Amino acid sequence: MFRITFLGTSASVPTLERGLPSIAIKYESQLLLWDCGEGTQRQLMKYKVGYGSINAIFITHPHLDHYLGLFGLLETLKLSSPSPKPVQLFLPKAIEVRDYDFTKVSAVKKGKIFSANGFTIHAFPVKHTKGSYGFVFQENAKIKFNEKKAHDLGLEGKQFSQIQERGFVKIKNKAIKLEDVSWVQSGRKIVYAGDCAPSSNIIEEAKDADLLIYESTFDSSLATEAKERFHSTAEDAANIAKQANVKKLILTHISPRYSDIDLLLSQARKIFPKTDVATDGMTIDITQSKKDK
Amino acid sequence: MFRITFLGTSASVPTLERGLPSIAIKYESQLLLWDCGEGTQRQLMKYKVGYGSINAIFITHPHLDHYLGLFGLLETLKLSSPSPKPVQLFLPKAIEVRDYDFTKVSAVKKGKIFSANGFTIHAFPVKHTKGSYGFVFQENAKIKFNEKKAHDLGLEGKQFSQIQERGFVKIKNKAIKLEDVSWVQSGRKIVYAGDCAPSSNIIEEAKDADLLIYESTFDSSLATEAKERFHSTAEDAANIAKQANVKKLILTHISPRYSDIDLLLSQARKIFPKTDVATDGMTIDITQSKKDK
Repeated sequence: MFRITFLGTSASVPTLERGLPSIAIKYESQLLLWDCGEGTQRQLMKYKVGYGSINAIFITHPHLDHYLGLFGLLETLKLSSPSPKPVQLFLPKAIEVRDYDFTKVSAVKKGKIFSANGFTIHAFPVKHTKGSYGFVFQENAKIKFNEKKAHDLGLEGKQFSQIQERGFVKIKNKAIKLEDVSWVQSGRKIVYAGDCAPSSNIIEEAKDADLLIYESTFDSSLATEAKERFHSTAEDAANIAKQANVKKLILTHISPRYSDIDLLLSQARKIFPKTDVATDGMTIDITQSKKDK
Repeated sequence: MFRITFLGTSASVPTLERGLPSIAIKYESQLLLWDCGEGTQRQLMKYKVGYGSINAIFITHPHLDHYLGLFGLLETLKLSSPSPKPVQLFLPKAIEVRDYDFTKVSAVKKGKIFSANGFTIHAFPVKHTKGSYGFVFQENAKIKFNEKKAHDLGLEGKQFSQIQERGFVKIKNKAIKLEDVSWVQSGRKIVYAGDCAPSSNIIEEAKDADLLIYESTFDSSLATEAKERFHSTAEDAANIAKQANVKKLILTHISPRYSDIDLLLSQARKIFPKTDVATDGMTIDITQSKKDK
């Protein structure tokens, strides 16, 4: 399973329909949160993402609407079990969290900050407030055998692991190379830029991503305000998505002024058609792209 | 208008049905909050209690589930207006809140801490954690004229204000005393004990209250646990209500273990029949008791 659940999609202030920012990523047995706004623990219940199994929480930047819920969630984890499962916290330096014995706190910094079975997460700086980062979830590439070809060449049993370890095996005195019988399935990639003004490094980080989650605090008529506040418009988001050649763009961090999201959607889709606007509870399964197979 | 709205009624951890503790009191033009757990700002929206008009917020004790929402709510007030309406905060000493220029912070202490047109609020210590208080909302008593009697004795126009100022007026050389033509309507009173173990001073504070809002974290089978944790059972609540001779008891701070509240309700009603269990969004209008009229 590789599933994204939007837990909160509002900007700065919650609305009846949208809670404050948080995104859950379920990858096989791992559960991660990107941001943890006020009310996240209740959103986790509402959208049936079990908070008891969270492995790590990553906060993009030290604005209260993106992290206040962390305190309530950690308190609940402490109360819910005599020995809560360990949770790694990746926080901007400005945020101090009470030292629970089941948490391990690290500062978010540029580069790889987390890895687990099958993927890594790295952070990249964005232009917003001091200590603002975006995150890249990169699934590891996998060696996939062309089973017909491998069997035709005589590969059997242990030889499949041998060829992966050594890069070749000998069958009837003939060396068969790994690349002759296999192909590389590139890992899936999702990118969340947090709150940010557009910048060229985001395009590089999001290159060819399966999913880009990008803020759209303003529509394009408020481009000046977006720029002044180091936020982005729907058009900014779409331009980034287009230049990065991502497979899908999801707009989030929607200002309460947009009760109707058609404006944002139409502005973005003119530039990048494969755009949707996140809603609270929306789930997206990140499937393996067919062209890699 | 004198209306209570329960914004959050869960204990420690929210559930799908119950948010974390907060109670709104609307008295004429004043809006007050007692406690402000995580998510309160969104509950204020959901239950149509306008947070833009809050005058004062009172926190019973320094446990996170009772005050985390304060930070989000204040941030929202700051963002919502270039010059937010002043808000007075009454906090346990252990809680530090960022100094917004529209807030005035005072420590909760025993005795009268707030008054506005028509009422006062005082705090009384309860047994829970260090710095735990309950609150009494006491409406001022009002002088009510027996209009028929006053007119029969010849009172007219300005004499109604004169008799209130001086205690008497002279009509045809006869002194008419205020008490001859009026009666005192006692003020309405509501009491919220916060989190607490039962104690005799709560009975005194709640004496003859129109409404007692009292925690019921445990049912009576868990009396030992309640005692150890300085909480109360449904029976404790009912005993306090009965001894205090209140008009109505509402149980709140319901542990997530009670998805069905019939157990709590039946235990309490055996002792004090005029008991209900709060639900999120429940409103109660505090009407003037008929016997005073």
